[in-house]
Amino acid sequence: MDKLTQYLKTHPADKLHPSEIASLLKDLNEKNFDEAVKHIPKELIADVALELPDRYFDDVVDSFTSEELAQSVAELESDDQTDFIQELEEIDDSKAKEVFKKLHKDDQADILQLKQYDDDEAGAYMQVEVYAARLDHKVEDIIKEFAELKRKGELETVNYLFVTDEDNHLRYGVGLDDLLVFDFKKTLRENIGENPEKYKPVIGHDHDDIKEIVKKFQEYDLNSMPIVDEHGYLLGRITSDDIYDLISEHATDQMYNLAGVNDDAEEDDDLIKAGKARAVWLGINLITAIAASLVIGMFEGTIQSYVALAVLMPIVASMGGNAGTQSLTVVVRQLALGDIAKNDAYRTIKKEVILSLANGLLFAIIIGVIAAIWFDKGMLGVVIALSMIINLLSAGFFGSMIPLMLKKLNIDPAIGSTVILTTITDVVGFFSFLGLASLILL
Amino acid sequence: MDKLTQYLKTHPADKLHPSEIASLLKDLNEKNFDEAVKHIPKELIADVALELPDRYFDDVVDSFTSEELAQSVAELESDDQTDFIQELEEIDDSKAKEVFKKLHKDDQADILQLKQYDDDEAGAYMQVEVYAARLDHKVEDIIKEFAELKRKGELETVNYLFVTDEDNHLRYGVGLDDLLVFDFKKTLRENIGENPEKYKPVIGHDHDDIKEIVKKFQEYDLNSMPIVDEHGYLLGRITSDDIYDLISEHATDQMYNLAGVNDDAEEDDDLIKAGKARAVWLGINLITAIAASLVIGMFEGTIQSYVALAVLMPIVASMGGNAGTQSLTVVVRQLALGDIAKNDAYRTIKKEVILSLANGLLFAIIIGVIAAIWFDKGMLGVVIALSMIINLLSAGFFGSMIPLMLKKLNIDPAIGSTVILTTITDVVGFFSFLGLASLILL
Repeated sequence: MDKLTQYLKTHPADKLHPSEIASLLKDLNEKNFDEAVKHIPKELIADVALELPDRYFDDVVDSFTSEELAQSVAELESDDQTDFIQELEEIDDSKAKEVFKKLHKDDQADILQLKQYDDDEAGAYMQVEVYAARLDHKVEDIIKEFAELKRKGELETVNYLFVTDEDNHLRYGVGLDDLLVFDFKKTLRENIGENPEKYKPVIGHDHDDIKEIVKKFQEYDLNSMPIVDEHGYLLGRITSDDIYDLISEHATDQMYNLAGVNDDAEEDDDLIKAGKARAVWLGINLITAIAASLVIGMFEGTIQSYVALAVLMPIVASMGGNAGTQSLTVVVRQLALGDIAKNDAYRTIKKEVILSLANGLLFAIIIGVIAAIWFDKGMLGVVIALSMIINLLSAGFFGSMIPLMLKKLNIDPAIGSTVILTTITDVVGFFSFLGLASLILL
Repeated sequence: MDKLTQYLKTHPADKLHPSEIASLLKDLNEKNFDEAVKHIPKELIADVALELPDRYFDDVVDSFTSEELAQSVAELESDDQTDFIQELEEIDDSKAKEVFKKLHKDDQADILQLKQYDDDEAGAYMQVEVYAARLDHKVEDIIKEFAELKRKGELETVNYLFVTDEDNHLRYGVGLDDLLVFDFKKTLRENIGENPEKYKPVIGHDHDDIKEIVKKFQEYDLNSMPIVDEHGYLLGRITSDDIYDLISEHATDQMYNLAGVNDDAEEDDDLIKAGKARAVWLGINLITAIAASLVIGMFEGTIQSYVALAVLMPIVASMGGNAGTQSLTVVVRQLALGDIAKNDAYRTIKKEVILSLANGLLFAIIIGVIAAIWFDKGMLGVVIALSMIINLLSAGFFGSMIPLMLKKLNIDPAIGSTVILTTITDVVGFFSFLGLASLILL
């Protein structure tokens, strides 16, 4: 509380940064939070609400009226406005409608336009506030107009000029650093004319998959990208700060999917939603665990004859699960990062099989010796060693093959691959160990 | 091969993008790759080598002489030059020394300077090529000088002007879009003078932890950040494209650590290195699996009396492992993203325990009924149900507590947490199930 009040006192209103305010708020307990939130300058409320982790959102909006929220939302750019309204709709639809009504009709139109896009489309992430310079205007006039808009505070950070013709079709992109090299007395067309290839912008279309957009940002080291419709009409732009968030979010999705957790369900404090999502995956896991138990059930007689088998059997299954997870995680991540090319499947599977075989042999020897000594039975060591080799081999093979196959079927390799893999390593682990034991020991 | 040759034919030399060339090369098999690499314009070789996944690096450099490589490295910026030399040193130290010797002495000095930094320091990621404008120069002169350097190709993309005094101490940062608003006839000092707070740049120091730098980029929506030494002397800059790579790499590290895999070891095609790293984690897992087996060993008599227990016992352990992994993954990721504040530990553990308890009760009932019917023994259903509740409860508790505790001890929560957790869920799972069975059934 003290830190926040101090921060608010020592910084003039236009020097306050929403992310710094959010950082300070996060450290407060619930009581102080509700108190402190009221001290934040009203026009920053919406921005701060978006900067905080999602679970604080309702705490923030509950402290203000629709009128206050609307005034604050008006300060945001269109992409943030849309995000705010959509988040508000999820927790309090009527309040969201009130806030929306109080917005300027231009803002309303922008929000409605952006809301039409799905979460995986580029259009959902763009802001419509773009400065477009006309091809046939003189550079010095463009700079004057640009400076005027900046002075009036109508333009946020721009470092890349989008150049359109009279029909608002995007034609070129000129970095501000390149603009400074131009002859200010000539038009953009004349300046560009000598070398039009140099100013061809990297473009995104509003219905493009956002993951393709992120890839382009990374491949071409972009700071901003114009978004156009199917006719080449300039609609808006996506900037580097969006990409930072997206790369992070996509990675989080991958991590969560591998663990059987759903990002959307976890991010609020909605325990019921999160619990349900987790229950689905736990339920599927229960089914596969029962399947593995059915395998064990086939060998009840074997275990009855030699209980040591019950003591050792989880070791093989567990090592298979771990080795398989190693292969799976590496292949899933490399697929996502584009490190595995189309015809690379064979090389990838080969690499994983070799690694698993090598470690399989190593640990087969280790556990074989341990088991033989522990139960004073050499053949038991042989059985568990063979079983270890078989299971680790299958772990490496399926750990790489499952994500590659899912990818080929155009399914996200991170979803479901873990549960398919552990089913296999459990079943193969128990079956090979108990099966070999039945054959060799009894 | 065809696509690449076509690409190279249809694009003039200065329109070729290294990342596009890398994309096309990735799709070729080994024979075509070695052939195609020779067709790439020599000055792009080093850039393409850096764009390709690490395992291609030696294939590329083996196709060229030190002289050719040196000429290509000269085209890179200092941070990429340093990366290239360091990667080359790892695979062929003598060739790296040859290439280094053939570089211009200014480049050599830059590389030596950058090599001094550790991998987790900001200095390791900066490029030293920065354009610094003097505070007491007129804006129109600065623009002329800037334009001249751009025309000569001595400056890469700039969108943020670093302003220094005569001693090369960084004083201000002015976006090029803000520069265009300035009075060109006045000096920077005079233009800034009215509002110096507005042009205070977000700065990084060369020995700062790179993760803090990445955080600042995300918090302040930066495109570039000046890097200074402890005296405020401008050393270089880090740009948004570096941040895209870093966010992705840090996420990969987390994912790999949770799976017991090491990023550095996996990225080359060095199977021995990767195999060894994986063996370490598999070895630790073997020890914990044996620990769980010792627990089962305590109940050999119990299992002997009732073999159904051996059939069902992996279910409880497996469900505990899955539920624990769900909690662990969420907490580890939220810690990394800064979503969990310092005093949030209690809230986090509480949430995970509630979720686990809820799902524990649900699945206890389900498996209790299934077990009772399967083995026609009601008390067996009770035993496994109780055991399920106990294990899922401990899974949720430890799944959240372990990463929080590691974080408090300043250890990366992603490293080792998985193996600690599965040890607990296996031991608790087997002990509670077999222990309760001993008590209740026998």
